[in-house]
Amino acid sequence: MRIAIVGAGALGLYYGALLQRGGEDVHFLLRRDFDAIKRGGLQVDSVDGDFHLSQVQGYRTTTEIGEVGLIIVGLKTFDNDKLHDLIAPLVGPDTIILTLQNGLGNEEHLARRFPLGQILGGIAFLCANRGEPGTVHHLGQGAVRIGPFRPEARASCQSVANLLLQVGIACEPVDDLLKARWEKLIWNIPFNGLCALTGRDVTQLLTDSLMRREITALMNEVAAAANAQPLSSPIDSEPFIARMLTVTDGMDHYRPSMMLDRLDGRQLELESIYVEPLRRAQAAGVATPRIEQLHALLTLGEGA
Amino acid sequence: MRIAIVGAGALGLYYGALLQRGGEDVHFLLRRDFDAIKRGGLQVDSVDGDFHLSQVQGYRTTTEIGEVGLIIVGLKTFDNDKLHDLIAPLVGPDTIILTLQNGLGNEEHLARRFPLGQILGGIAFLCANRGEPGTVHHLGQGAVRIGPFRPEARASCQSVANLLLQVGIACEPVDDLLKARWEKLIWNIPFNGLCALTGRDVTQLLTDSLMRREITALMNEVAAAANAQPLSSPIDSEPFIARMLTVTDGMDHYRPSMMLDRLDGRQLELESIYVEPLRRAQAAGVATPRIEQLHALLTLGEGA
Repeated sequence: MRIAIVGAGALGLYYGALLQRGGEDVHFLLRRDFDAIKRGGLQVDSVDGDFHLSQVQGYRTTTEIGEVGLIIVGLKTFDNDKLHDLIAPLVGPDTIILTLQNGLGNEEHLARRFPLGQILGGIAFLCANRGEPGTVHHLGQGAVRIGPFRPEARASCQSVANLLLQVGIACEPVDDLLKARWEKLIWNIPFNGLCALTGRDVTQLLTDSLMRREITALMNEVAAAANAQPLSSPIDSEPFIARMLTVTDGMDHYRPSMMLDRLDGRQLELESIYVEPLRRAQAAGVATPRIEQLHALLTLGEGA
Repeated sequence: MRIAIVGAGALGLYYGALLQRGGEDVHFLLRRDFDAIKRGGLQVDSVDGDFHLSQVQGYRTTTEIGEVGLIIVGLKTFDNDKLHDLIAPLVGPDTIILTLQNGLGNEEHLARRFPLGQILGGIAFLCANRGEPGTVHHLGQGAVRIGPFRPEARASCQSVANLLLQVGIACEPVDDLLKARWEKLIWNIPFNGLCALTGRDVTQLLTDSLMRREITALMNEVAAAANAQPLSSPIDSEPFIARMLTVTDGMDHYRPSMMLDRLDGRQLELESIYVEPLRRAQAAGVATPRIEQLHALLTLGEGA
């Protein structure tokens, strides 16, 4: 399938590389990595085995790519105001758009311009960072869960899931995308924010006993907010949170993307990971004091 | 009266200087400022008018001072384990001990060794910082409220209040010291912690709309915890908090001592300002999620 990767950060580069290695016709929209990839290809250093793609189709604009069958969006969410115009040249009547962006509100944003039957959302549970230009480091995990934003896209969802599975990406199609998104927020809200705010990695936070308790308390706030949303079934929060902590204990000194963004002085994805979830929690009447305080502290840092 | 100032930070130097200027026989236990004060005296740069004391009785040890009628304790609370032995040489059968230290638990600590009839506590609402050695900057405020730890000390309290008033210190004797301490915590818990954590002064925090909301929410948590304690009457939290915000709006870019301590890499007074209040809130069954998170973030920084 002809596939475009829009937003070629660690996530876009990694999944795009797996798709190309699996025989798909992948086109990468590149910024920082354009020159390096054009010159030397794309290197994937992965816990599952390193590999190199010497010929990579990289572009500066989406117009050069033209219409594709599948768009995978990995753009930072604070660039969403540019997303419609950016992907318009890629979209034909049957093009499927899969956003793997963080947080809430991304499918809604796409749905303002593109047909509901073409919009999928997904959650990547992936530990990956960009290295030198032309290199992506895959440090662990990597499964994705994808779902239709609205029932109209169910068939598209199944075909994309099959495609991802074929190239070796552990993909689980889900019916309840909203639930999957909230489950991911149970991890993102504490770890992205606290790591960015404190400059400590997940291991440094989890081995501090007070901070571990705060992380658990934040997770419980997110789970309570989630279970006040129209989910198909509630999240069984106690075992879910216990599992998230155990999984994260296994991430050796992982630095979430928001922490790297803060360290590098880049903008943070606060709107999709904090503001929109807080808005929906408040609309449902759920108290979220810890999330509010964390969000206020992160926002203050943005003005620095 | 023969008076000893123990813990000659900004607070101890400032009130000690006012007492000496008012004609009292003041003896300062000094560390950092010893040489400068011995050489050039003590300079007070004050919003109420600068003044200089050329002859100051400064000491390296309390043994050199000997018995006094009144001890004013301004020691950082994390040094409380040294306090008993430090002041023992100053204490006679009628010596009054007034602790102006921050937070909760200071009178209880003194009461483990010294008679209840001699123990007073006080709250200074003072904006002051140390300048160059030998200089203290009084930036604003300065009123103190003092009270007996136990009824046995009521008479002592009245006589110390009269003494302070005579030298021009706005002193209000209170019967309910516990209430006064909790009222002060309504200011200390948000501002000390948030300024230390973020490196922003009170004005920078209060002019950020999200942060102002968080400060108000933190104040409400402290007030709820306070009103679950055995106070003589509840704190009328809404007008009290509104007044605290207004007063603090008037403190032009003030940096609380805990912020300066963090900036200078010194230890923070977390036990008396956070741990003990949290312990009492929890014992009373009051939820304090924001204070807990703030405390955990500050504690993490202490391990830096």
